[in-house]
Amino acid sequence: MKKIRFECDYGEGAVWEIMDRMMKTNLMQTPGYGMDEISESARARIRALCKKPEAEVQFLVGGTQANMTVICSILRPHQGVVAATTGHINAHETGAVEATGHKVLAVPGKEGKICAQQIEELYRAHWADGSHEHIVQPGMVYISFPTEYGTLYTKAELQEISRVCRACHLPLFIDGARLGYGLMSCKNDLSLEEIADLCDVFYIGGTKCGALFGEAVVITNPELARDFRYLIKQRGGMLAKGRLLGLQFDTLMSDDLYFRISEHADRLALRLREAFTAKGYPMLVDSWTNQQFPILPKEEIDRLSEQFAFEFWEKVDEEHSAVRFCTSWATTEESVEQLIAAL
Amino acid sequence: MKKIRFECDYGEGAVWEIMDRMMKTNLMQTPGYGMDEISESARARIRALCKKPEAEVQFLVGGTQANMTVICSILRPHQGVVAATTGHINAHETGAVEATGHKVLAVPGKEGKICAQQIEELYRAHWADGSHEHIVQPGMVYISFPTEYGTLYTKAELQEISRVCRACHLPLFIDGARLGYGLMSCKNDLSLEEIADLCDVFYIGGTKCGALFGEAVVITNPELARDFRYLIKQRGGMLAKGRLLGLQFDTLMSDDLYFRISEHADRLALRLREAFTAKGYPMLVDSWTNQQFPILPKEEIDRLSEQFAFEFWEKVDEEHSAVRFCTSWATTEESVEQLIAAL
Amino acid sequence: MKKIRFECDYGEGAVWEIMDRMMKTNLMQTPGYGMDEISESARARIRALCKKPEAEVQFLVGGTQANMTVICSILRPHQGVVAATTGHINAHETGAVEATGHKVLAVPGKEGKICAQQIEELYRAHWADGSHEHIVQPGMVYISFPTEYGTLYTKAELQEISRVCRACHLPLFIDGARLGYGLMSCKNDLSLEEIADLCDVFYIGGTKCGALFGEAVVITNPELARDFRYLIKQRGGMLAKGRLLGLQFDTLMSDDLYFRISEHADRLALRLREAFTAKGYPMLVDSWTNQQFPILPKEEIDRLSEQFAFEFWEKVDEEHSAVRFCTSWATTEESVEQLIAAL
Amino acid sequence: MKKIRFECDYGEGAVWEIMDRMMKTNLMQTPGYGMDEISESARARIRALCKKPEAEVQFLVGGTQANMTVICSILRPHQGVVAATTGHINAHETGAVEATGHKVLAVPGKEGKICAQQIEELYRAHWADGSHEHIVQPGMVYISFPTEYGTLYTKAELQEISRVCRACHLPLFIDGARLGYGLMSCKNDLSLEEIADLCDVFYIGGTKCGALFGEAVVITNPELARDFRYLIKQRGGMLAKGRLLGLQFDTLMSDDLYFRISEHADRLALRLREAFTAKGYPMLVDSWTNQQFPILPKEEIDRLSEQFAFEFWEKVDEEHSAVRFCTSWATTEESVEQLIAAL
Repeated sequence: MKKIRFECDYGEGAVWEIMDRMMKTNLMQTPGYGMDEISESARARIRALCKKPEAEVQFLVGGTQANMTVICSILRPHQGVVAATTGHINAHETGAVEATGHKVLAVPGKEGKICAQQIEELYRAHWADGSHEHIVQPGMVYISFPTEYGTLYTKAELQEISRVCRACHLPLFIDGARLGYGLMSCKNDLSLEEIADLCDVFYIGGTKCGALFGEAVVITNPELARDFRYLIKQRGGMLAKGRLLGLQFDTLMSDDLYFRISEHADRLALRLREAFTAKGYPMLVDSWTNQQFPILPKEEIDRLSEQFAFEFWEKVDEEHSAVRFCTSWATTEESVEQLIAAL
Repeated sequence: MKKIRFECDYGEGAVWEIMDRMMKTNLMQTPGYGMDEISESARARIRALCKKPEAEVQFLVGGTQANMTVICSILRPHQGVVAATTGHINAHETGAVEATGHKVLAVPGKEGKICAQQIEELYRAHWADGSHEHIVQPGMVYISFPTEYGTLYTKAELQEISRVCRACHLPLFIDGARLGYGLMSCKNDLSLEEIADLCDVFYIGGTKCGALFGEAVVITNPELARDFRYLIKQRGGMLAKGRLLGLQFDTLMSDDLYFRISEHADRLALRLREAFTAKGYPMLVDSWTNQQFPILPKEEIDRLSEQFAFEFWEKVDEEHSAVRFCTSWATTEESVEQLIAAL
Repeated sequence: MKKIRFECDYGEGAVWEIMDRMMKTNLMQTPGYGMDEISESARARIRALCKKPEAEVQFLVGGTQANMTVICSILRPHQGVVAATTGHINAHETGAVEATGHKVLAVPGKEGKICAQQIEELYRAHWADGSHEHIVQPGMVYISFPTEYGTLYTKAELQEISRVCRACHLPLFIDGARLGYGLMSCKNDLSLEEIADLCDVFYIGGTKCGALFGEAVVITNPELARDFRYLIKQRGGMLAKGRLLGLQFDTLMSDDLYFRISEHADRLALRLREAFTAKGYPMLVDSWTNQQFPILPKEEIDRLSEQFAFEFWEKVDEEHSAVRFCTSWATTEESVEQLIAAL
Repeated sequence: MKKIRFECDYGEGAVWEIMDRMMKTNLMQTPGYGMDEISESARARIRALCKKPEAEVQFLVGGTQANMTVICSILRPHQGVVAATTGHINAHETGAVEATGHKVLAVPGKEGKICAQQIEELYRAHWADGSHEHIVQPGMVYISFPTEYGTLYTKAELQEISRVCRACHLPLFIDGARLGYGLMSCKNDLSLEEIADLCDVFYIGGTKCGALFGEAVVITNPELARDFRYLIKQRGGMLAKGRLLGLQFDTLMSDDLYFRISEHADRLALRLREAFTAKGYPMLVDSWTNQQFPILPKEEIDRLSEQFAFEFWEKVDEEHSAVRFCTSWATTEESVEQLIAAL
């Protein structure tokens, strides 16, 4: 018997609307490297949704690629990027940022989040230090929305981070690998437009939100857009058949598809959350998006593992560990029912 | 009226066998990052075709990515990679190799090819120089098969290059972005197995040979395989939904599909070659693969451009330029007939 | 009135023996880049003192240079260097290691020291992680002797670190910017020979120990020595008039000069330590080398600052801060007496 | 019998004025890293001589260091530096520029020089190329004055290069490792002030012009000066005892010392030139500075080698090779007389 899988949000392929269109356009002859008309259409849709008619929009294949390309395009050699210790760029990208020559200036996060005050203090401490030339200069700030723990910045928090970043001349970059799940969370009070307003560059994640692959980088600060496509090419992120990326985002950004599938995943995740909570299991963090981290007793983990796949996250004590359950566009109501029943 | 396009070999999507399988497996739940069973099957097929049961096989999304990842995984910081001046890594990858810290040691090629003697001389000159520590040390050799000009190394040439590389302890890396077209050329005397034998690492190109995207890196020298997957991840080349890469190569490597579609493209390209030659147009280089570079008078270029898309290559004299016509799996007999008729 | 300076150990020039010899050999014509006979003599003396007749010995101008050159010569691109959070490479070299592409894997130190268990745990955690390819691989270990806080590893501690490093195949690199002060400390139980035995590469600091500038890198692990001089050149550390480096180390390593001046500095530092302690001031860390970190009340800091220069280190509470007093070969008994009197 | 050495211009130590002052200030206590008063004085002298009261002046230890630090501080990641194929950064620095991630865009020089037209053509060709994003973008221009072959740019040539660079927004960097010998050449028509005017950044070489070591980087374009000291620190070029660098330039820039010693070396070199020419030996290049490259028959090379040291440069034909003779501040009239006599 095959297990029912909740271990990640990239276990299947793409929503059928994407698959169908890929089939239909397979013989279409287009210029390469994202210069095709479908990619242009996708750009236009994204600019419209963000209400940023001048934004630079470019499509990259994956998240690590998007992160390192954006970061190395912004920083000068002596600058680093401020991020939470748990930030994806610091923890799970095999040092991709350092491989471009830059230090990640890690600050301790709380449930994956950092706050405006930490950024300001780090910035001030740097410039107050008499030997600051001997220390990596903070050059930009990276946050994830939602974070790697599924948590969200509130509008007030993001506004404050944005205010500090602008006061300190630190471009703000939001990793939106799971942006849809953040935007559609019942606890979210931020719109796509506000996110675009409050940062300098962000990306709309496709890989984990219904696409086969792809992340749409949106650069709203025109100073940061210059020559960005050179960087994409140099860092290996320029897909020859760029139509494939454009097509996926053009489809996702039509008819609210991106938002509808994200809402679906969030809703199922919250049903899991309720079920775990009802059973008295505490949650490692307070997530209201598509990733849930219940703390379960060992025997319960073993028991559930027979029927379901999910990810070990971290040991909490001798008897308990936190595990991760993810939902996605492909998660069915039936799978969730079965898991709840098994609990 | 839409033009008939011969401008590149990545203008369309993928062969239908790939598209169909992608549809059929879309809901399949697999582990990510190339650890799925379809990728394993593709690896097994490639190892079998190369007769290298121990080879490390990894799939990357694109050619620039494959090139820089392989190169930076092999070289120490003070070493460079020997390549033809016209080599893709030297000319058309926005300095991706240099961005990993390494100089491309460019040697003048002849129709895109370098020879064993050039490698040996460069190697000897380096070590004979009393101040060689002030000079980048040759650390590996990169060649393309076929080259960026569609030309081929003969078996004798490749054996000699291989012999010199081994004598000089220089790993030999073959960029096979268009490997299929090389192998299936009527002038080719090398088998896939021999290529695998004669080099240390090469890749089987998918993007330009029937796949949506993807290059299969084959590392036959076990010393070079260690930790290669870390490098893929760090350089942004590890696709979350790795099944998509495995699936494409598993399909292409079944039933000779890769070879059949390459043969088709080569055959059509040679018909173009004959037609140009019959009209008395000289060819810029002597290519017997899917890229043809006729030298045409300006007015002929203008006239053909009304109906066909092809790429300007280089000016030859005031009245003539070389242009490039490419064929691929997607090129039809009809398109070729129409072009020939137009000539 | 000029202040008496205790703020660092590189405020003056070099011991007179060096200055004299520099004058005497000024017109000597020598080959460049460290290939001269004086450099060879210095190498021979260092090998003899370390009892490592086969060691590779190379001279670099400064510490940041030595650190980054050694580190980037050892690591492959996906590897990082384990170090204390307070380690010089992590805290005070403007990201020089990251600029070579490598992450510093910072672990919390205790008074500047890390322990064997931390290294082993980090190593095991890496390899136990199912997705270790997504994480920077520990590739070597960096410690300072003495540390940036003046503290020392005991022989037992270093033996244990060495044992773990070898078991984990992690080369051990000791930053000896202040090695002399460590070796001559009354609390030290390690000999130069033992240090050379227990690590794979270390350096004997000159800049902070009596030379105008210069660090002698000693590579005892022959596998790590290959092509090291290329790296020195590439990273800008190869001094044209290499005689100047050789001369300084040849002088310092003759007649125990290096050890005598270090002992002098340590002795004066301990007199300061006693004086502070006698006055009831606690010390930030338990240092028995040439750097002392008393915690003083604000008004005492202000009062002493009128007559003496010393460095602010860190705020301890609203009323107290830790400050740093350094001694060196150039510190006189009189200066120390005056400071003690002022207390 | 010791040979009389003409093999390089860095075989001895420093002019005695420097040595004396180093002795006299040896016990002076100064802040580190170039923040001392002597360094400030040297900066002021250089600014005054260049008539650039606002210029940023920083001292680095050596030429490779200066070159790579300046270059990596200016370029964005996708940009390269245009240089002659024979330029020091391309030929003799072990890929130091590439190690910072940037390609050297080598153009063929003529006796070590490139011309404005080459720069303009390369720039235009880049931007005219439809796929320029796939090619390294020219980001700055590097020339040497004098060149590695001892040749000089005329005022007219440099003005034209400067004009093109400014029109193309390419900062112009002049490597002045041997600047003194260029300025004092009887064929030179450029002043220090004009050089400072025509470029954006240059350095005044000390290592090869009378100092123990050291290069004074002068940044006249204020946009390029920002945060330069961070880069110096990160790339290992910040000398702890910065006084030593300041002192050397403060001395050299006083009483025309730098210019007097350079004039001395040039004058002796020209006597050699005349002697070789009088004997009928052709010169490899037309140098009027301190490096001379006569083409000598094999047997003459062997004969002279018994008594004199000089450098093999390149083979010209089976019977002849070019060799290099250098003079410096330390070359004596007697040595020159002896060589002339031996001819």
